[in-house]
Amino acid sequence: MTTALLTDHYELTMVQAAMKAGTANRRSLFDLFSRRLPEGRRYGVVAGVGRALDAIESFRFGDEELSFLLEKGIVGDDGAEWLANYRFTGDIWGYAEGEIYFPGSPILSVESTFAEAVVLETVLLSIYNYDSAVASAASRMTAMAGDRSCAEMGARRMNEWAAVAAARAAYVAGFKSTSNLEAGRSYGIPTIGTAAHSFTLLHDTEEDAFRAQIASLGEDTTLLVDTYDIEAAIRKGVELTGGRLGAIRLDSGDLALVAREARDLLDDLGATHTKIMVTSDLDEWQIAALSGAPVDGYGVGTQLVTGSGHPTCSMVYKLVARADSDDPDAELISVAKESKGKSTLGGRKYAMRRRDEHGVAEAEIVGLGTPPANDGNDRDLLVPMVRGGERVYRETLDEARERHLRVREELPRSALRISRGEPVLDTWIIDETGTEALSAYSNPR
Amino acid sequence: MTTALLTDHYELTMVQAAMKAGTANRRSLFDLFSRRLPEGRRYGVVAGVGRALDAIESFRFGDEELSFLLEKGIVGDDGAEWLANYRFTGDIWGYAEGEIYFPGSPILSVESTFAEAVVLETVLLSIYNYDSAVASAASRMTAMAGDRSCAEMGARRMNEWAAVAAARAAYVAGFKSTSNLEAGRSYGIPTIGTAAHSFTLLHDTEEDAFRAQIASLGEDTTLLVDTYDIEAAIRKGVELTGGRLGAIRLDSGDLALVAREARDLLDDLGATHTKIMVTSDLDEWQIAALSGAPVDGYGVGTQLVTGSGHPTCSMVYKLVARADSDDPDAELISVAKESKGKSTLGGRKYAMRRRDEHGVAEAEIVGLGTPPANDGNDRDLLVPMVRGGERVYRETLDEARERHLRVREELPRSALRISRGEPVLDTWIIDETGTEALSAYSNPR
Repeated sequence: MTTALLTDHYELTMVQAAMKAGTANRRSLFDLFSRRLPEGRRYGVVAGVGRALDAIESFRFGDEELSFLLEKGIVGDDGAEWLANYRFTGDIWGYAEGEIYFPGSPILSVESTFAEAVVLETVLLSIYNYDSAVASAASRMTAMAGDRSCAEMGARRMNEWAAVAAARAAYVAGFKSTSNLEAGRSYGIPTIGTAAHSFTLLHDTEEDAFRAQIASLGEDTTLLVDTYDIEAAIRKGVELTGGRLGAIRLDSGDLALVAREARDLLDDLGATHTKIMVTSDLDEWQIAALSGAPVDGYGVGTQLVTGSGHPTCSMVYKLVARADSDDPDAELISVAKESKGKSTLGGRKYAMRRRDEHGVAEAEIVGLGTPPANDGNDRDLLVPMVRGGERVYRETLDEARERHLRVREELPRSALRISRGEPVLDTWIIDETGTEALSAYSNPR
Repeated sequence: MTTALLTDHYELTMVQAAMKAGTANRRSLFDLFSRRLPEGRRYGVVAGVGRALDAIESFRFGDEELSFLLEKGIVGDDGAEWLANYRFTGDIWGYAEGEIYFPGSPILSVESTFAEAVVLETVLLSIYNYDSAVASAASRMTAMAGDRSCAEMGARRMNEWAAVAAARAAYVAGFKSTSNLEAGRSYGIPTIGTAAHSFTLLHDTEEDAFRAQIASLGEDTTLLVDTYDIEAAIRKGVELTGGRLGAIRLDSGDLALVAREARDLLDDLGATHTKIMVTSDLDEWQIAALSGAPVDGYGVGTQLVTGSGHPTCSMVYKLVARADSDDPDAELISVAKESKGKSTLGGRKYAMRRRDEHGVAEAEIVGLGTPPANDGNDRDLLVPMVRGGERVYRETLDEARERHLRVREELPRSALRISRGEPVLDTWIIDETGTEALSAYSNPR
């Protein structure tokens, strides 16, 4: 399916006007970044990278798209012809999927002709902004859950396709599974689920429902025990499985209290291996609050797919340098708008995570025009993704997930505090002379 | 594209288990409703209806979907065979698109066999929850904007496909246009857009950029004037068009102040017909605050596609009645779970908006098992959508949009107050004897 029309109208009117003005082929560099983290967040998580690169490969204007654009007068014949032949031929580099980001981190850089790069603005931002919002929330949840497993179950509370992307982003941030079958098929994420309250209500008795479920899914299944009376349901589930019941799920009430009572009852009944899974409007705070309760796994829905209060990041895509002629070898000139409160920082950027001798992250270093000096402990953050139109970055979702869990470990301990706070790392912008050039993103302490 | 896997794993394990137990074909009735409005909201807007009915028509399990399900052991051969032949054969009725809803409104009812109806749970909720969240926020924005136009521009801040749905939901709630080309193609929504800051920065001077834009898009275009100096940009735009400039767009700063200065300058320059459009993190509060400023149109992004603080509704899909045998003529028995804080109301529901003799809405009436009496002023809310598997509800988006603007007019005036408040109508649940049965959703005043 083409991603070509997941694009704002003005991207194409800009291409059309620039073609007419003879400026469409000026070599241009766009940066994708955010001026800030969502309020109270200590770090952000980059997600959607693989999806974004897929979207670029699918960015093709076919007959149907071109007819629409021509009929509506959005482009003329010359614009349509250019779009028909659209293939991204430039270079892209950026933060790898699962990487941590901070205000001002140059998350993605796209260099090509103006026209080739500008038309990708909307779809790249759509993907990065939502996927990173979900991953950023998910990472706080998995951090609070520690060794306990987190399952993504939010599809019903978010747009049907966004939900698939959310399951993927959650997995990158350490979730173990999803309820979403399309996410299972598209991305190979393990899917889970057994039964809803409706299944119990369908049957004449709860016992009938449990028998039906066990007959189909085995004794190792997870029984939902709060449709009527929790104690009676647990006793019945243990009885029907001879104590070998896989797990129970609790979906209502004071979960800490109910989980404690359920654990005691299960243990009394000899079902010491039966696990307890909790669901019901969980978020990272609730997960943290349940850390002392005998819970084995969390199922998270609404608050995950809505980014726990921050359903989007504020990432933007800005022209930061361009040539002053069509010559492909012309030098790029830094450019920046001066709009109030929205000024940008022109020029090519390099990024590094400064680490101390123990490997603990100390600062986000952004070099303007030249790579900042690496004292040996530091870690370069930019990865080549597309070179001359050729995709060179491709990895499994598990690689991204492992990266995330690894680089999260590098952060100072305060990063994983549940309370609201400032970004745990300052971002230092270093100019070509090696001195700090700009403190736009610093948080002096 | 099939919607079949936009489904939670457990829907299919329930079908599989119910088939084995011989209960899958029990006639069942599911209600889609919400127990509450988002905090502080005075009314909700139903959106996504047309998309939901499309999704049911596309709910087909092909070879690829079945192979995945079989390989993962989610269904067995008998389950896969049933899914391969899946066609919804039941009845669906509910609130028309654009209609207003309140806590407890029976927004959608799905009656069929248990298996046929339960598998639609996830995709129906995904669509209704997100689309209605956007429409509910959008309606407050268009109410505050009054006669001024609202344009949807949020694609870059939300998942790429959710953004298309958001543009559609916003249109239902009175938005006039969108920046989203896919929404233009898929739903015929007028698309708009001219140029971004990058277009100005691409050119050697702002004047070059304006000349290029005017040459391509005509004098009636909208110039973005805040890349450098707003006053200089406005003067240049007016000069280049001989005072016939279509509009300017302001995207930063104190918009009320800047719009006033811009209007004065435009008028001084004789460009009295040049309109002023504002963008930059607008929401319904900001739109209301700008009501005294000389603004002609609002472009709304982030806060629209994220539901202005409420990116999802809390709609649920619950089994409320079912037969106790496979007999298609067996009577339906009301069922309801008793989970703490999540209890449901069993049985078939009818809905009516009670209106006084002036046509002003007074209450949401839900009849349990029997239609409530209509005193002549009241308005029935349930519309047949699918009958015996045949879709009978199909309308243009403009019809839904007109309905929304019309039924919003029926609400008491306090509905359109910007401040946070309670639902403007109580929901009265009336039992078969005609007396108020349950006050679960009432807000006694």
